[in-house]
Amino acid sequence: MHALEQLRSRMSELADLAGLEMLAQWDQRVMMPGEGAAARALQLGTLARLAHERATADDLHQWLAELDGEALGELDRDIVRVARRDLRRARRVPGELALERARASAEGQESWQLARANDDFAAFARALRRNVELARAYGECVADAGQSTYEALLDDYDFGLRTEELQRLFGVLAQELAPLAADARDSCRHRPLEVPVAAQQRAVRGTLRRVGVTSSSWRVDVAAHPFTAWIGRRDSRVTTRYGEEGLESLLAALHEYGHALYERQIDPALERTNLGCGTSMSIHESQSKLWENHVARSPAFAEVLAAELGAGGFTIAPGELHAALVDVGPSLIRVSADPLTYPLHIVLRFELELALLGGDLAVADVPDAWREGVRRLLGLEVPSDALGCLQDAHWGTGSFGYFPSYALGCLIAAQLWETLEAELGPTQEHLRRGEVAAIQRWLGERVHRHGRRLDTMPLIRRATGHALQVEPFLRFVAPFAEP
Amino acid sequence: MHALEQLRSRMSELADLAGLEMLAQWDQRVMMPGEGAAARALQLGTLARLAHERATADDLHQWLAELDGEALGELDRDIVRVARRDLRRARRVPGELALERARASAEGQESWQLARANDDFAAFARALRRNVELARAYGECVADAGQSTYEALLDDYDFGLRTEELQRLFGVLAQELAPLAADARDSCRHRPLEVPVAAQQRAVRGTLRRVGVTSSSWRVDVAAHPFTAWIGRRDSRVTTRYGEEGLESLLAALHEYGHALYERQIDPALERTNLGCGTSMSIHESQSKLWENHVARSPAFAEVLAAELGAGGFTIAPGELHAALVDVGPSLIRVSADPLTYPLHIVLRFELELALLGGDLAVADVPDAWREGVRRLLGLEVPSDALGCLQDAHWGTGSFGYFPSYALGCLIAAQLWETLEAELGPTQEHLRRGEVAAIQRWLGERVHRHGRRLDTMPLIRRATGHALQVEPFLRFVAPFAEP
Repeated sequence: MHALEQLRSRMSELADLAGLEMLAQWDQRVMMPGEGAAARALQLGTLARLAHERATADDLHQWLAELDGEALGELDRDIVRVARRDLRRARRVPGELALERARASAEGQESWQLARANDDFAAFARALRRNVELARAYGECVADAGQSTYEALLDDYDFGLRTEELQRLFGVLAQELAPLAADARDSCRHRPLEVPVAAQQRAVRGTLRRVGVTSSSWRVDVAAHPFTAWIGRRDSRVTTRYGEEGLESLLAALHEYGHALYERQIDPALERTNLGCGTSMSIHESQSKLWENHVARSPAFAEVLAAELGAGGFTIAPGELHAALVDVGPSLIRVSADPLTYPLHIVLRFELELALLGGDLAVADVPDAWREGVRRLLGLEVPSDALGCLQDAHWGTGSFGYFPSYALGCLIAAQLWETLEAELGPTQEHLRRGEVAAIQRWLGERVHRHGRRLDTMPLIRRATGHALQVEPFLRFVAPFAEP
Repeated sequence: MHALEQLRSRMSELADLAGLEMLAQWDQRVMMPGEGAAARALQLGTLARLAHERATADDLHQWLAELDGEALGELDRDIVRVARRDLRRARRVPGELALERARASAEGQESWQLARANDDFAAFARALRRNVELARAYGECVADAGQSTYEALLDDYDFGLRTEELQRLFGVLAQELAPLAADARDSCRHRPLEVPVAAQQRAVRGTLRRVGVTSSSWRVDVAAHPFTAWIGRRDSRVTTRYGEEGLESLLAALHEYGHALYERQIDPALERTNLGCGTSMSIHESQSKLWENHVARSPAFAEVLAAELGAGGFTIAPGELHAALVDVGPSLIRVSADPLTYPLHIVLRFELELALLGGDLAVADVPDAWREGVRRLLGLEVPSDALGCLQDAHWGTGSFGYFPSYALGCLIAAQLWETLEAELGPTQEHLRRGEVAAIQRWLGERVHRHGRRLDTMPLIRRATGHALQVEPFLRFVAPFAEP
């Protein structure tokens, strides 16, 4: 079993390099002085190239061939299965194409930033066109026989998703949510809550402490765009941001906490293997959305949040706080959307990227298609491309097939939460007291521990007993739509 | 010249990996939550192993062979010369040993921290023994024919140093300084200065700003054991520490600034080559000591420091501040030693590590040997191992042969400073106004820009016109010893 040992040792090496990459990216976004950017880009490039080289090397191919037909334990069988799948995909991509994509992504990021700042879509069109072409070329390379280009791209973020299934789910979302969004727009209930930054900071610290965030194993920092880094199993780093108005810092902190908790509760036996991380973007997003939507936005947990804000000198009644947290009203901007209308932003992006990749939509026509979609889905007029199709970085950096996971995360979270409550009983009494241990355990057992051993859809079926459904999410948001 | 291109590309890759390693170490000491240590040790081990593999690969050997006899430009000749030297050393070390050392180093760091906190040498002895054994094994691997194990270790930090030369220089230091230390102890002039931490922090920020430290290109953080990280040419990270008494935070900040400035002023043409970093630990230490001893401890610069402390609400006359900064009195702790007795701390460590490596001193006997040495050289009784042999991290992380550079740095700094003043004229008027541009330029021109193109002793000779001498340092400290 020499080949198995070698394989596992290479997987450990790749896991270590991934941890270092995450550290370098965390540092870049949280700690690095601005002028360090040029050196960091080169360092990250070198790290990515080395990791790719080691992940696609002939020796790895050889070890997997030697293991063909070997009798393996259950865990090793999964390690080999997923390693074969990853290697097959990676080796289909010519080095030149990988390099081109990396370059186009970096250039696209620059071009997008400038275009958004100047509200100038035309200046961005060339970079976007190049990234669409390269994504298509990449998708064609990695696609299995009979698989569409777009579906092949989806596999990078969420292995096994089917375009048809997404069209069905997102079709229901559009049909059910768009009328609710229109109602909310007309009733115009938006109430921004002004909370002093110091009180927010105090409440973020206090709330995270309640759910198990300790300084010996976590960091909590500030980032312009909140994200989470899992640098080691016991080294979790969440970020949030503080604005003058709203409760975004608390919601973002609990959202990022959900990502971190997922990675921390993966079966320790999978550590430093190719299975020792979250299985997909949509399951990851379901974990963050579960804490954001079903914990932070519950009436019961509002009592905890109100107490924590109170300790920071900002007095608010739990009922009023909860009302602010579930307040709905369509927004032009995805990242500040309410929980009800959020998926509609994704439906739009899914429709457009599918058409872009399929050649049914020209890059030059994206702004018009965007305006039409926002009118149809959210009932809003888009006043500028900066507040329209230029608001997200994803397409400019070549990430096509990523957006769906944001909406899927909302659906999966709702379905998991209904199952959890059916099995554990109502959670309100526990949440009111800030007790989340049973929730953490249930998630660890049903979702987290599997790591990459189960893909998105099989995991959902195993955890909830059903295929992915839209209804739990619709039941979750229904009360928010009531006048 | 395909081989030259390949060689230079490999050197860039290794420089990037070195930057990432420094980042991972900086993070471990400044940012990482404690429980991240286990994963970090594995990550650093993998990084070291990969870097070692790429630095010793057959292809590199082949490129260097192909370049044999090729007509090269001056810079490429140096790149090839130093690459040959590094390769010869590196290929003598088995990959497994390199990995073991990296692991033992990370684990030793943790063990040392705990042992020092608990004043428990026995708890540290195992990690120390392992590091001594690994250092010995490593030294035996890399030694040239006829070279002692210890001298082979020295070469890692200071290429070309000779044990005999160190014994001679350190012999003179012990002979000249120990009596002065005894006098200082008996006259008991030590006047601790109590400076509120907030005033120290304000003064550190203000003073560093005066010498060019900006937030866009630097970080200033707190570390238990101050150090500097140069993660990119424009990403310098100094650390300091704040205690209730004394001016250590200011001295440490300027000390670390000297290290950082060295790396920043290396010829940009050497960036991402094998020559693009400081040439040796002793030259590095001379740069930090120059700012600590010859700038921060000058009567003129005391006016700047007093003004910065004053801005933080701590009023002190420049003369009184200067007196406190050059006050001598033997201390148990190396890093808070005065400039006169400081080298005696190094003489002790040099004696002990030479004996440890040579097998003439057992790890279990280190505490007793330490007590004897402190009595003989500094005339002090050591009350605990935490204030004795547990005070430094170096041995616990496997760094043997490193300590001598601290004392050499003091000597080199004094010799450089005498040359600088002979050439630029008296510096006092400039220092009084906090103007250091001419000093920075002189150091850049004479010392920094060369990177690794010149080794320690040739660099000293080139910069000062003389071999390394003890006398400039003795002249520098002579006034401090006067009653």
